[in-house]
Amino acid sequence: MPESRRDDTATIAALGERGLIDRLRQRAGAPPPWIVIGIGDDAAVLTPERGTVDVVTTDSLIEDVHFRRAWTSAHDIGRKAFHVSVSDLAAMGATPRAVLLSLALPPSLALSEFDAIAAGFLGAAAAARTPLVGGNIARSPGPLVIDVTALGSARPRRVLRRSGAHAGDELYVTGSVGGAAAGLGWLAAGHDRKTLDPAAHASIERYERPEARLRCGQVIARAGAARACMDLSDGLADAARQIAEASGLGVVIDADAVPVDEGARAWAEANGRDPVMAAVAGGDDYELLFAVAARRTRRFEAAARRCSGLPVTRVGRLTADAGAWLARSGRQEPLPLGFVHY
Amino acid sequence: MPESRRDDTATIAALGERGLIDRLRQRAGAPPPWIVIGIGDDAAVLTPERGTVDVVTTDSLIEDVHFRRAWTSAHDIGRKAFHVSVSDLAAMGATPRAVLLSLALPPSLALSEFDAIAAGFLGAAAAARTPLVGGNIARSPGPLVIDVTALGSARPRRVLRRSGAHAGDELYVTGSVGGAAAGLGWLAAGHDRKTLDPAAHASIERYERPEARLRCGQVIARAGAARACMDLSDGLADAARQIAEASGLGVVIDADAVPVDEGARAWAEANGRDPVMAAVAGGDDYELLFAVAARRTRRFEAAARRCSGLPVTRVGRLTADAGAWLARSGRQEPLPLGFVHY
Repeated sequence: MPESRRDDTATIAALGERGLIDRLRQRAGAPPPWIVIGIGDDAAVLTPERGTVDVVTTDSLIEDVHFRRAWTSAHDIGRKAFHVSVSDLAAMGATPRAVLLSLALPPSLALSEFDAIAAGFLGAAAAARTPLVGGNIARSPGPLVIDVTALGSARPRRVLRRSGAHAGDELYVTGSVGGAAAGLGWLAAGHDRKTLDPAAHASIERYERPEARLRCGQVIARAGAARACMDLSDGLADAARQIAEASGLGVVIDADAVPVDEGARAWAEANGRDPVMAAVAGGDDYELLFAVAARRTRRFEAAARRCSGLPVTRVGRLTADAGAWLARSGRQEPLPLGFVHY
Repeated sequence: MPESRRDDTATIAALGERGLIDRLRQRAGAPPPWIVIGIGDDAAVLTPERGTVDVVTTDSLIEDVHFRRAWTSAHDIGRKAFHVSVSDLAAMGATPRAVLLSLALPPSLALSEFDAIAAGFLGAAAAARTPLVGGNIARSPGPLVIDVTALGSARPRRVLRRSGAHAGDELYVTGSVGGAAAGLGWLAAGHDRKTLDPAAHASIERYERPEARLRCGQVIARAGAARACMDLSDGLADAARQIAEASGLGVVIDADAVPVDEGARAWAEANGRDPVMAAVAGGDDYELLFAVAARRTRRFEAAARRCSGLPVTRVGRLTADAGAWLARSGRQEPLPLGFVHY
């Protein structure tokens, strides 16, 4: 990105909507050939990829609800807005093709903050080869709102729904869980980052810099190795419950199998919480949860080895009986609810 | 819509995100066959229409910036959010296929207001045969924000850009201009609607209930009758300037030709403003401005007769010399700037 002389007192109000859009366009780079029309017209135009269906989702990050500017750098806020939105494409097994960015910005926002949000967003988009093709910038009389629409493509028979699971299917989760919620816990408790140990730092990193599991979703979808999938935006317990309910089933999670994030364990112990309960209830992980037919687990595990080194762990199974349970030491307790927005 | 017993004291916080999404899904009705996956999964999935390109746009309405709840009914706010977004598809000559709705809602919002916003939005979407296929609901600590993503399709060679105009092209505008800005003027001045005359009422209607010119955009695009198009979201002066700049040209608007809305004329006269200047500078009209090759004006006018009775008026022309001018009585004055958001 060209580094011009920066005036730290400048606000976005000085540039106006059009100036800000031009700024984004300059930094977005040249679009790939399938983008017929990108930033700057009434709408963007994309050539569909032959033999695929369009996959589309929208998600928002709202200041003081999903992030705080006092806690998280503007760069990481922009970066997170990208990953949170394309995580929904990952959960469908889709490949991202383009994003649109709709910003509601307080006029007092420093231009340097705007540039940092843009750099975080565009850097993440470039790393995922997903061009910014349009959007909208408006004034907000309140919080900063970042709304991202992500467009992707998938083979029609390879789309991963929430509702495809059968009784007896095994549940697998990518990576580890609970880390982001622990990171938010450390931040909310007002700890000075300098005094926190490395596990706590790693949790804060999980909260502030989530990584959409795009490659893993695509690999599993293309291999036809899963029957259902959802991302853990509201936590493992929530995702397990949602797949079960959408498929007309129940679910049991094995407490001992849950890959609890190391920092999540430290946070739970420091706060007198049960580590597994805290980890499965915590949101913002953006891992993927797959339902896999029992006779397909070897195919699934073989495909999962192509997930760029991301581990997958079998954490439970779907049941014909309704209900959502956590099994531990031969007993079952109710699975906690996930992160609740209201 | 099923009319259940209404508790006027209920707020949306009682239902939560999932309850609100279910409420939208119930009211959205059954999706058409090209929607493979609609509301309720991580993302929506659409089968592309053969031989078309995808056209996509996002736009937002923000409380106290784009609307006030004290002025405009919740139903009309929802309705306007739909029309404002698909107006960008109209300006590309595209046919809408689906919309996504991202809402940031204050928890204190009455459930009856939510239902009215939903009814206005879904009613407009149903009238335009554009299913709601997904979106997002989050809590807002500030204003109500309605972000709408609209997806459409168009024949690749028929897409109307902003940048396709040539010097000598004629400019045509649909309907009349300035009405919405006059309506906003009456509302902002705090007039009691009961005491206003019919022209003022009609202007307020223009402001609160815009109508995206979808049919006209499609008819002109399919006929190959225009070289460029833009909607008048920020006014005629702005749209003329944008088409000219995007095409590397200048523009002259004929003051006497501008189809000034009757209410806009009344408002300008009541407020000591020049009616034409006020009308071309006023935003929120959502009419379409077309650039038409001089040798194609008959074809354009013939096609425009299929715009469901919406008149089109020749208002000016594009020039090789840069600059944006209003010509009146043999003199040229600078064309005003359009509506400015910051």
